[in-house]
Amino acid sequence: MTETCTVCKRKPPVYFRKYSGEKLCKKCFCESIEEKVRATIAKYEMLEFNDKTMIAVSGGKDSLTLLRILHKIEQEFPKAEICAVTIDEGIKGYRDEAVKLAEQAYAELDIEYTVLSFKELYGYTLDEIAEIARKRGKGLTPCAYCGVLRRRAMNIAAKKANATKLATAHTLDDEAQTVLLNLFHGDVWRIARVKPVTDEVHGGLVRRIKPLCEVLERETALYAYFKKIKFQSVPCPYAGTALRNDIRSMLNRMEEKHPGIKYTVFRSAEKIREALEESLEKGELRTCEVCGEPTVGRICKVCEVLEELRINVE
Amino acid sequence: MTETCTVCKRKPPVYFRKYSGEKLCKKCFCESIEEKVRATIAKYEMLEFNDKTMIAVSGGKDSLTLLRILHKIEQEFPKAEICAVTIDEGIKGYRDEAVKLAEQAYAELDIEYTVLSFKELYGYTLDEIAEIARKRGKGLTPCAYCGVLRRRAMNIAAKKANATKLATAHTLDDEAQTVLLNLFHGDVWRIARVKPVTDEVHGGLVRRIKPLCEVLERETALYAYFKKIKFQSVPCPYAGTALRNDIRSMLNRMEEKHPGIKYTVFRSAEKIREALEESLEKGELRTCEVCGEPTVGRICKVCEVLEELRINVE
Repeated sequence: MTETCTVCKRKPPVYFRKYSGEKLCKKCFCESIEEKVRATIAKYEMLEFNDKTMIAVSGGKDSLTLLRILHKIEQEFPKAEICAVTIDEGIKGYRDEAVKLAEQAYAELDIEYTVLSFKELYGYTLDEIAEIARKRGKGLTPCAYCGVLRRRAMNIAAKKANATKLATAHTLDDEAQTVLLNLFHGDVWRIARVKPVTDEVHGGLVRRIKPLCEVLERETALYAYFKKIKFQSVPCPYAGTALRNDIRSMLNRMEEKHPGIKYTVFRSAEKIREALEESLEKGELRTCEVCGEPTVGRICKVCEVLEELRINVE
Repeated sequence: MTETCTVCKRKPPVYFRKYSGEKLCKKCFCESIEEKVRATIAKYEMLEFNDKTMIAVSGGKDSLTLLRILHKIEQEFPKAEICAVTIDEGIKGYRDEAVKLAEQAYAELDIEYTVLSFKELYGYTLDEIAEIARKRGKGLTPCAYCGVLRRRAMNIAAKKANATKLATAHTLDDEAQTVLLNLFHGDVWRIARVKPVTDEVHGGLVRRIKPLCEVLERETALYAYFKKIKFQSVPCPYAGTALRNDIRSMLNRMEEKHPGIKYTVFRSAEKIREALEESLEKGELRTCEVCGEPTVGRICKVCEVLEELRINVE
């Protein structure tokens, strides 16, 4: 007797989902991912029927998978719209290919999009910023600069496109890693900020959603593979922090031995967040005196960073 | 030029404390551990000047180190008293040696002590309980039974000796492991229970303190080695849970690469606990209808476990 898919009971299985015990054929696997994303969106009330959602697409497997799935879901909601943005940070030999892959996907799915570069927005590419910081011998890591500037760039793009939501492709792996990273850094209050959908805190801040936050990264990769999505597989030359990399491999090892553990970490963080939110007062956001974007202080982090870079260049 | 101890600047260092950068000679290292324990006791207000503290001694390096250090500290407080208890769980080929080592230490330091066995208290040795559970093919793991019954045994011993505090030798490693274990199990509310000193919640429950909770296990081992403390090094034949063992090795690897990370995890848990405690109402403890010991329900966990075992034996 040949084995068949746990769901359709007809086709041969191609994937064993350890944490659930299911053996799935290609079609049922892909449908299960789409269903999971639908369920996540519903559970966290990520989208209204008439939202215009901008999807942040880097050109990697996660974001191209998200684009494909949200494009499919959007067709079920006539009043909903999607569009996309690709941020070109200016990383030589890395970003060019990814932008091309993203544009191919936009053309194929007929999606309205923008490409926004650090250079045009801020006057510097990330490579230039990294070089300035390196020469000074102090300042943030390239990844820290990139994080601050990329989040802002996405928000600017979303507002320009009149988008009401901004979707990023953070997976369950990213979320579980971030929880442990914050715990290992002692940044407990940050656990309260890692959430599937951000609160509406300021008119100038488009609410961010993470529809893949309950999907394992290995499963977005498999989805992309089955759907023949062409994605960039070269990793970014700015390698990320040592601690996050260690946490990533540790969590992968743990998930291998204790299937479902990434999801449990994610759920634990939700419970911690609920408790933290009760005891934290919600910080009101102000408007940056320099650029007018939302900020916790008088001057926003982006303007601070840019000012610092400028002083150093002059 | 030969290198000297960071503290006394005279003797040659024998230990490099990675997380602080100190290089310590034998004497300064041992003093630093004793000082740390004093500081922990003060910070968490673990002891009053006139407490009678019962120390739970298994015969391993951690508990014999704790016994030695608390014995030293006690001499500075004329109204304070210490005594000790060793629980004999009834683990063949393992516990006998440990009991002997503990008794040697008590004699050497002239400490009042009790040895209390599962057999006399509950009618079964842990070996017998494990065998019953194995035959039934269900029930708790030996370690889970042991945890429930040992905690109760310690409380009974402490009350008999009129002790006002019960000190256990949990190290920073144990505490950091437990935090992650609870997170990986999704038992977030339990993080609120892992604390250096328990609240006074019920007259029948002697408050427990963990004076080694800020000391690395490798440092209690080194202290025991320098002080020529004879301790049992054979591990318990009931090996603990797979998940805790994985977390232990993971944390050891992480501490090696990122010195201080165990302490950061411990501190993160304290912040989470504060938030959880605010949002949790404090549960009142009741009195078990069978044995009269403190319990959250009508019947305590110990009586539940014993009843289950009895049914099975009959």
